[in-house]
Amino acid sequence: MVSSVRRRRDHTTTIAFIAEQTGVSVPTVSKVINGRSDVSSETRRRVEAAILEHGYRRTARSGPRSALIEVIFNELESEWALEIVRGVERVAGRNGLAVVISEMEGRGTPSRGWIDGVLARRPMGVIAVFSDLDDAVREQLRARDIPFVIVDPTGEPLHDTPSVGATNWNGGLTATRHLIALGHRRIGVIGGPEWILCSRARIDGYRAAMDEAGVPVDPALISHGAFHVDEGIERGLALLLTPNPPTAIFAGNDLQALGVYQAARELRLHIPEDISVVGFDDLPVARWVSPPLTTIRQPLVEMAVTAAELALSMARGETPAQPRVELTTELVIRESTAPPRPR
Amino acid sequence: MVSSVRRRRDHTTTIAFIAEQTGVSVPTVSKVINGRSDVSSETRRRVEAAILEHGYRRTARSGPRSALIEVIFNELESEWALEIVRGVERVAGRNGLAVVISEMEGRGTPSRGWIDGVLARRPMGVIAVFSDLDDAVREQLRARDIPFVIVDPTGEPLHDTPSVGATNWNGGLTATRHLIALGHRRIGVIGGPEWILCSRARIDGYRAAMDEAGVPVDPALISHGAFHVDEGIERGLALLLTPNPPTAIFAGNDLQALGVYQAARELRLHIPEDISVVGFDDLPVARWVSPPLTTIRQPLVEMAVTAAELALSMARGETPAQPRVELTTELVIRESTAPPRPR
Repeated sequence: MVSSVRRRRDHTTTIAFIAEQTGVSVPTVSKVINGRSDVSSETRRRVEAAILEHGYRRTARSGPRSALIEVIFNELESEWALEIVRGVERVAGRNGLAVVISEMEGRGTPSRGWIDGVLARRPMGVIAVFSDLDDAVREQLRARDIPFVIVDPTGEPLHDTPSVGATNWNGGLTATRHLIALGHRRIGVIGGPEWILCSRARIDGYRAAMDEAGVPVDPALISHGAFHVDEGIERGLALLLTPNPPTAIFAGNDLQALGVYQAARELRLHIPEDISVVGFDDLPVARWVSPPLTTIRQPLVEMAVTAAELALSMARGETPAQPRVELTTELVIRESTAPPRPR
Repeated sequence: MVSSVRRRRDHTTTIAFIAEQTGVSVPTVSKVINGRSDVSSETRRRVEAAILEHGYRRTARSGPRSALIEVIFNELESEWALEIVRGVERVAGRNGLAVVISEMEGRGTPSRGWIDGVLARRPMGVIAVFSDLDDAVREQLRARDIPFVIVDPTGEPLHDTPSVGATNWNGGLTATRHLIALGHRRIGVIGGPEWILCSRARIDGYRAAMDEAGVPVDPALISHGAFHVDEGIERGLALLLTPNPPTAIFAGNDLQALGVYQAARELRLHIPEDISVVGFDDLPVARWVSPPLTTIRQPLVEMAVTAAELALSMARGETPAQPRVELTTELVIRESTAPPRPR
């Protein structure tokens, strides 16, 4: 579907052309493009459809942007989201912009109200965090020349959507190598949801480290779950209660790792003596749990800074030199990992 | 100083009067009031001073507000801030508004750039979290008829500034009563900074519970520190290393309680066997630390919802029935408190 839209796109499409195609007046098309509310929803729908079909693209000259930068989260949850907000605030502060925050409440796609609001506000840029914007929304933003950047994309990195992520595969590799170096062979892994690309990359890094060390991968030790504490408890219990349980668990993120802590507690297992645990993210809380969590640091603040700067450079009319940026992850060794207990 | 400003305020002050007083044109005064940038900073300063002195107040008829609600934080840190954002997002979503987030980076007072931005955006309302707005900023917002509400005020609850807080005194009382009921007599307390009213109220609640039980308060067991983990470690160590250490510590908030966990860990003390710990806030992390933290729940999301609704009702021209709202705190008993070890 994307490709058929692309084929028909014509960069010379004008407001007059859209007006002609839809049978409405030029000022009405202009109102829709400017996100004004005094247009009937039926007319708006027709104009939006024509814009999507013919690929009208607003030029940089067509009006001032407001001094806003928008961030939309799939879920506004945990210190994870806060680190992102702090990064965007930093860039906004330097540029005299205010930051608008929205949440999809876990739906994975923004509401109609959200996109209407963005078009009306006409911000300098939009940053979508851990979510993908669907084709229609992308086209609406493009048509108004509102740049958008995806942080930690859940799906295929599309070449025409700039995005900022972290080296997830390397993180999975490094975490698993660390456990292997400590002497672990039965290493369990909890991935994020399978449909999310970053969690697949982490698990592939785990596989690569196991292969490298000549340790066979036992499919019974690989599980998947949402990036929440509760899922960490559930998957952690399942792994620890298998007949031949792992001596170490690499969790999909720090929240899942906290869940594994809880599972170990319920089974009266000690960390790291009975079970080693590695997380992913390095949220502030990782330092304060007991024992402090060994984890893969994802530079969340820097990722947000990079995304915001990318959006602003596009707003200035620059073409990003690198549309897909991956920042480096690193292993932070604390006290939740140790050699396995001799059997 | 506040009272002298009040005495001079005249609600019939018009833009023309301000123009006459400052010797600038009516359109220029209007520009300043509307937050336009095309006014020299010197002129702006003079007009602002005259507005502050004569108390010009914009009427509700003088222009549309934008569909924004603004939240300004002293520090954008920990899940605490996120709970507030979630509450405001909830009200914003129901009312078709977007949420603008700003941070003072711990300075306690907003920057000049922030207030200029707010005046230019003209939001439906401003919510200041854990910070006080100074007189000049209050007057600037009043002059533009931008309602503002303070969440968890740090200073005197001023009668003319609506605010939302929690029953801090009751929380301190309940936390201490819980420890006394378990058999503790030597109970240490870490308050927030002394100049912050809510932390004083919590400590007064502690005193009241001690008095009620006929337990003398030992001043050596009362300390103060910022609401951060690091301060919890430092004050926790100091308390636990006194010659006659406490058997329980009531921390100023959950982050300080995590610091006390760390201090206990360093001293190889077990929670709750060697030392009981009570927090304040009930952040999500309180459930996930080991042992899960007994704490005083502060309904942060509901406090933010109440503040946002208060601001919107004022934007509709309503006068708040209750300008100072205090929501109920409650004790959440988990596993960090137990009877003291027999000596």
